[in-house]
Amino acid sequence: MYRRKTATRGGGLGAPAARVGAWLVGARGSVATTSRTGAAAVAAGLAPPTGLVTALAPFDRVALPKLSELVFGGHDLVDTPLVKRAEALAYAGVLPGSLLHAVADALDAGEADILLGVGAATGTRPPRRAIERIQRDVSSFQAAHALDTVVVVDLASTEARMAGPWLDCSLEALDRMLDQRRTVLPASVLYAYAALDAAWPFVDFTPSVATQLPALRELAGARHVPYAGRDGKTGQTLVRTALAPLFASRNLRVCSWSGTNLLGGGDGEALADPVRAASKLASKGRAVPSILGYEVDGSLHIDHVPDLGEWKTAWDHVSFEGFLGTRGVLQLTWQGCDSTLAAPLVLDLVRLVAAAQRAGLEGPLAPLGFFFKDPVGSSEHRLDRQFQALCDWAAGLEGSR
Amino acid sequence: MYRRKTATRGGGLGAPAARVGAWLVGARGSVATTSRTGAAAVAAGLAPPTGLVTALAPFDRVALPKLSELVFGGHDLVDTPLVKRAEALAYAGVLPGSLLHAVADALDAGEADILLGVGAATGTRPPRRAIERIQRDVSSFQAAHALDTVVVVDLASTEARMAGPWLDCSLEALDRMLDQRRTVLPASVLYAYAALDAAWPFVDFTPSVATQLPALRELAGARHVPYAGRDGKTGQTLVRTALAPLFASRNLRVCSWSGTNLLGGGDGEALADPVRAASKLASKGRAVPSILGYEVDGSLHIDHVPDLGEWKTAWDHVSFEGFLGTRGVLQLTWQGCDSTLAAPLVLDLVRLVAAAQRAGLEGPLAPLGFFFKDPVGSSEHRLDRQFQALCDWAAGLEGSR
Amino acid sequence: MYRRKTATRGGGLGAPAARVGAWLVGARGSVATTSRTGAAAVAAGLAPPTGLVTALAPFDRVALPKLSELVFGGHDLVDTPLVKRAEALAYAGVLPGSLLHAVADALDAGEADILLGVGAATGTRPPRRAIERIQRDVSSFQAAHALDTVVVVDLASTEARMAGPWLDCSLEALDRMLDQRRTVLPASVLYAYAALDAAWPFVDFTPSVATQLPALRELAGARHVPYAGRDGKTGQTLVRTALAPLFASRNLRVCSWSGTNLLGGGDGEALADPVRAASKLASKGRAVPSILGYEVDGSLHIDHVPDLGEWKTAWDHVSFEGFLGTRGVLQLTWQGCDSTLAAPLVLDLVRLVAAAQRAGLEGPLAPLGFFFKDPVGSSEHRLDRQFQALCDWAAGLEGSR
Amino acid sequence: MYRRKTATRGGGLGAPAARVGAWLVGARGSVATTSRTGAAAVAAGLAPPTGLVTALAPFDRVALPKLSELVFGGHDLVDTPLVKRAEALAYAGVLPGSLLHAVADALDAGEADILLGVGAATGTRPPRRAIERIQRDVSSFQAAHALDTVVVVDLASTEARMAGPWLDCSLEALDRMLDQRRTVLPASVLYAYAALDAAWPFVDFTPSVATQLPALRELAGARHVPYAGRDGKTGQTLVRTALAPLFASRNLRVCSWSGTNLLGGGDGEALADPVRAASKLASKGRAVPSILGYEVDGSLHIDHVPDLGEWKTAWDHVSFEGFLGTRGVLQLTWQGCDSTLAAPLVLDLVRLVAAAQRAGLEGPLAPLGFFFKDPVGSSEHRLDRQFQALCDWAAGLEGSR
Repeated sequence: MYRRKTATRGGGLGAPAARVGAWLVGARGSVATTSRTGAAAVAAGLAPPTGLVTALAPFDRVALPKLSELVFGGHDLVDTPLVKRAEALAYAGVLPGSLLHAVADALDAGEADILLGVGAATGTRPPRRAIERIQRDVSSFQAAHALDTVVVVDLASTEARMAGPWLDCSLEALDRMLDQRRTVLPASVLYAYAALDAAWPFVDFTPSVATQLPALRELAGARHVPYAGRDGKTGQTLVRTALAPLFASRNLRVCSWSGTNLLGGGDGEALADPVRAASKLASKGRAVPSILGYEVDGSLHIDHVPDLGEWKTAWDHVSFEGFLGTRGVLQLTWQGCDSTLAAPLVLDLVRLVAAAQRAGLEGPLAPLGFFFKDPVGSSEHRLDRQFQALCDWAAGLEGSR
Repeated sequence: MYRRKTATRGGGLGAPAARVGAWLVGARGSVATTSRTGAAAVAAGLAPPTGLVTALAPFDRVALPKLSELVFGGHDLVDTPLVKRAEALAYAGVLPGSLLHAVADALDAGEADILLGVGAATGTRPPRRAIERIQRDVSSFQAAHALDTVVVVDLASTEARMAGPWLDCSLEALDRMLDQRRTVLPASVLYAYAALDAAWPFVDFTPSVATQLPALRELAGARHVPYAGRDGKTGQTLVRTALAPLFASRNLRVCSWSGTNLLGGGDGEALADPVRAASKLASKGRAVPSILGYEVDGSLHIDHVPDLGEWKTAWDHVSFEGFLGTRGVLQLTWQGCDSTLAAPLVLDLVRLVAAAQRAGLEGPLAPLGFFFKDPVGSSEHRLDRQFQALCDWAAGLEGSR
Repeated sequence: MYRRKTATRGGGLGAPAARVGAWLVGARGSVATTSRTGAAAVAAGLAPPTGLVTALAPFDRVALPKLSELVFGGHDLVDTPLVKRAEALAYAGVLPGSLLHAVADALDAGEADILLGVGAATGTRPPRRAIERIQRDVSSFQAAHALDTVVVVDLASTEARMAGPWLDCSLEALDRMLDQRRTVLPASVLYAYAALDAAWPFVDFTPSVATQLPALRELAGARHVPYAGRDGKTGQTLVRTALAPLFASRNLRVCSWSGTNLLGGGDGEALADPVRAASKLASKGRAVPSILGYEVDGSLHIDHVPDLGEWKTAWDHVSFEGFLGTRGVLQLTWQGCDSTLAAPLVLDLVRLVAAAQRAGLEGPLAPLGFFFKDPVGSSEHRLDRQFQALCDWAAGLEGSR
Repeated sequence: MYRRKTATRGGGLGAPAARVGAWLVGARGSVATTSRTGAAAVAAGLAPPTGLVTALAPFDRVALPKLSELVFGGHDLVDTPLVKRAEALAYAGVLPGSLLHAVADALDAGEADILLGVGAATGTRPPRRAIERIQRDVSSFQAAHALDTVVVVDLASTEARMAGPWLDCSLEALDRMLDQRRTVLPASVLYAYAALDAAWPFVDFTPSVATQLPALRELAGARHVPYAGRDGKTGQTLVRTALAPLFASRNLRVCSWSGTNLLGGGDGEALADPVRAASKLASKGRAVPSILGYEVDGSLHIDHVPDLGEWKTAWDHVSFEGFLGTRGVLQLTWQGCDSTLAAPLVLDLVRLVAAAQRAGLEGPLAPLGFFFKDPVGSSEHRLDRQFQALCDWAAGLEGSR
């Protein structure tokens, strides 16, 4: 349907548009490093835009910021130099070794714009202080690079679930809590608040709760700023949301849908912690029942297998019942590299969310559900419908150019 | 999305409508026997309508003939009694043994309406004679049961590919050939001509060439009769057309898509003949490149493994390239029972095509592409888009009620 | 190598030998019911001896009790009639429906010899009383049928792990505990003690601790009685112990070996309890590191998926490193019916253990390790070596005839 | 069982022994290049001896030539420099890029000993001339390096099957044909004759017919020289011969065993030619029926999928019948790199065959069947039995030290 662009077109992707910053939370992680390396490589024509949704034909006439014009910065809790991280990714086979040399200067130059991030608010001082620090950091970045806007993208590793009154309070109540020393809050909420409060669009690429808070939705409305989330749909859920409509539309009853994920790498390690894994499993579990219209039996595991490095393997086993009760089984395995599946979506989201802000949109961007396991503002999980909705929405942005 | 109906609703599926006959070519085969057994069982409330697309919510308000009102007849080249065939299918686990007793009378009663079929025209006498015989048989059936219309469904086993001037000639030229003794033609063309010429809607559930002939399209136009085809999409291609849009919409480049099918049973035997398999492989091979927009490497095998009986297993191996050239692999296996995957679609098609005729539609019914590997009148292969098109089209039929 | 016997030979399997009873703990479960149905069917020539190891050529000249001469009895905690259980298994596709009629009389006749079993000793009265009751029950059975010996086979569902001083005490100390009211013990130990103390050979087909107790080993020595165990090797571990030697003998380093088991049925339910599953997982986990000679990363799940009924599916993912560090991956799925994989082994074990007793053997029967996930008396897990050891040992029994 | 050696031991593998040459036919191919690179890397302690069977404990006391002492030469029909080939293999991920620099000098130095090979005898001149040329080339190599012996290893790509009177004639008759101009012969026979006639041990790592010829067996006897073959067992057949004994020893009846191989790279291309593939398929097809003792239904495909590069993927589908006719299915996929699976076996074979010659053995070396799909001199295909036979045989060689 949509033909791939040639490598040479990659550099020129996008129309003349606003100067846009991409502030990555988790800026030294695998996904962030791959996004930046890839943006530089595609912009320079060294790699084709494979994997970039916004490089497909339906986005040709949408006024998106060019890859070459994106300016990157971010927060992280570690200080491994980006170039070292890229070298490790190249050694692991994630990045082509041949690109390293070409992008090393760009990565080095970006070091100055990666600052020490904030952790969860632990009840020792008012969370407002951390928020203000985040805002100061991003503001300086915006000013230094003369950016029209900055899209804040949360790429941090999966947080442990936390409970608290802030989960479903009003903005007013949240504001009071932020000024109280004893308030305990996950880092994701601090970042999301900081971004929305300053009218920077926010993208939650993790299964954090931030984009679920009514208070933050209220804040986005008050500041007229758009946001999108949550939890990038890059592997097993991506495949499930392509396959589940088959069963629904053919009136085949899914009896059980079981799955196991084997992950190496950083996220695998975070998810070896059952408390953190719970967030991920909850966000992964919503798609299938939502598409089928009924609950389905079956377990879902996320296992940390360090030996797999940056790769992951998912196994799915679907047992279904057809005409006159006859059974069938669909099994599949998906082997992919998490970082390179996720990285182009980060670039897509920065481009699309920036365009949405420019078009005057605010609040949760439901048409971006295509990118997420658990889309905010939408209950549509069917992949192809999500893609149609995205294309239709993007076509509507054209006029705003 | 669409909830399954309860078993008790199955009996009453459909609105008061025309009396419709279903004339099955290959009336004693596994698919035909399963369709008839299932129609009787669902109509009697003995089985839920699982697998019937027309039992889904979007068809609730469409004026379709009731399952309980369909009258079955057909041609076959063998004379195994239907009840024997059903017993063999129950022994093989395809039909629940408990249904046999309940439907035996209905199957026995139907024997009188299954007549000896015609084979390919072999050049020994004018093909017109075979066509006339088919038309006499179906006319008698229609008259005997006072049917408003008869839908002719080709369920014969896969034919060998044949070439001839009739493949792309005009109706006038075809008509001349039909009167010539030496003309050689596949049986599928005889049946399709007989049906369309008599203004009975025609459904090609096989990979035969009949629905590809310009002359037959012309004939359908002249007689103002609709038709649909071809080659029921029940297994590997069904899954492929659900998955391929994932790669297209995520801009992932499919490098190779290889597959192997293991089939027992009747169709497996027919397809062990490479000449017949060629028809099937050609019809199977169109979907993926059409969805992706480019040709894809990879082989496709259909193997006859008698031991598998009525079951089939398909293995697919998809190698793809993502961002910065990183590779991924998707593998899947599909284990299903061909007859029970196909049978409900036959009932769906009879109901929908009859409704289309009643609504005054003629020619190829592109919106029924959802049911076929190689849809006539449409180049859309994406499963979910086909389903949307089907639902939209069916909604349009409502008004004709 | 070893040709299957024809069905007609099945009836006469075995040489004239001692009259042997088979006392099944869990006598109304799926495995016991399938064993008894199968023994009757094979003895009557209604089914071939497929799945019976002792029907292979290497056992032709070993003096084993005939299947037709085995007399069955047992304990259970439920009272579902065997015929009902067999009907349920036939409905689930485990037993051929056609066999039910033929074996119904035999199953009915056996009801009188199935008595209410004992549960774990819970500290309310001395465990000795339960042991004495078991011994009285089995003695009456032995006397009533004039049996030379009775093989007691534990087929109960997986027990929760229990700890206590009895785990590694002497026989003398255990004997003292058995007379104390407060002693808490799992049922498996009660059965094993009752059997060995009365010089009835004992087979542990479950992952229970009974055959691990030094005290029971001592008891078997004192009573000169043989025993075998533990945990029948019927699925994933069976395949793993066939495959792991490949990696060891080709000097390929296994980096990770992960697995997921999906089980319906009774055992699936028991294993949905994490405390019980721990026993099973421990017994499953020993084989691979033992064969490879090093610990291997990877997780192992046992999931209860009720929809799968009596069937189970296991997925294995093996990542390995070869020459110069190049990686490879082996993945496999195993779909089988647990009861019919286990049942013939129960019959094999009864025959072999009875022959061992007749040959004057005592203590743990290491050469029967071929049948078990965690063989007592042996650290050999390689399947083919176990089979060779079994055949060599059986050949040695011939002389005792 | 057998622990891996540490990398540092790799360099010293083997005892002081004869100076041995390895003459590789197909010296510039992937397998040969990987063998040489690996020998240099392991000898230098840069890589562990993973994948080398002769590095396992059972070979510790066998007098094998050291890797560091092997001298390589060979014939090829192309002239790509070894270093270029190694670079291509590193780019494809087969060789670690980090090794290239370390072994480049060794590979360059070896160029002088790779000469232009001979093709099939096409009937234009007596084949004897080609044989003499081969012998002159190898003799010069032997003299130049003062080698005690030279092992000739056929690593050429799969030949098309050829028929002729030489297939089953006597040595005397073959000798006459070699002097006749019109004689047509595959290259493999020329190489095998040249080697055996000059008393150089010969290893056939391909599915060629050479080692099947009675005349060449006679020649080996006359010259008192050992040989081994044929067709290295590195992938699907390796796994099949590990798994098939499971079914045999558990008396499970295999109903069908189907398989598909997807190969990129050079051998994939050769095997895309159906005439060549026939040789491979025949040699692959023998193992399973031989182990089971009966013929088994099922197809076997070898497909060329260029996109897979040096990697291959094999899918196996095994349908089996167990107790009371219940069915089960085992499916597996094997993803590996052909060259690195084959290369260490080439080194093992050179070492073992040289030691066999030194120990005075002659004719087909049946105990080396462990390495081959279709072992000469043996009908044993069960992998673990083959490994045992190999270890026992090697232990017998120790005395000759």
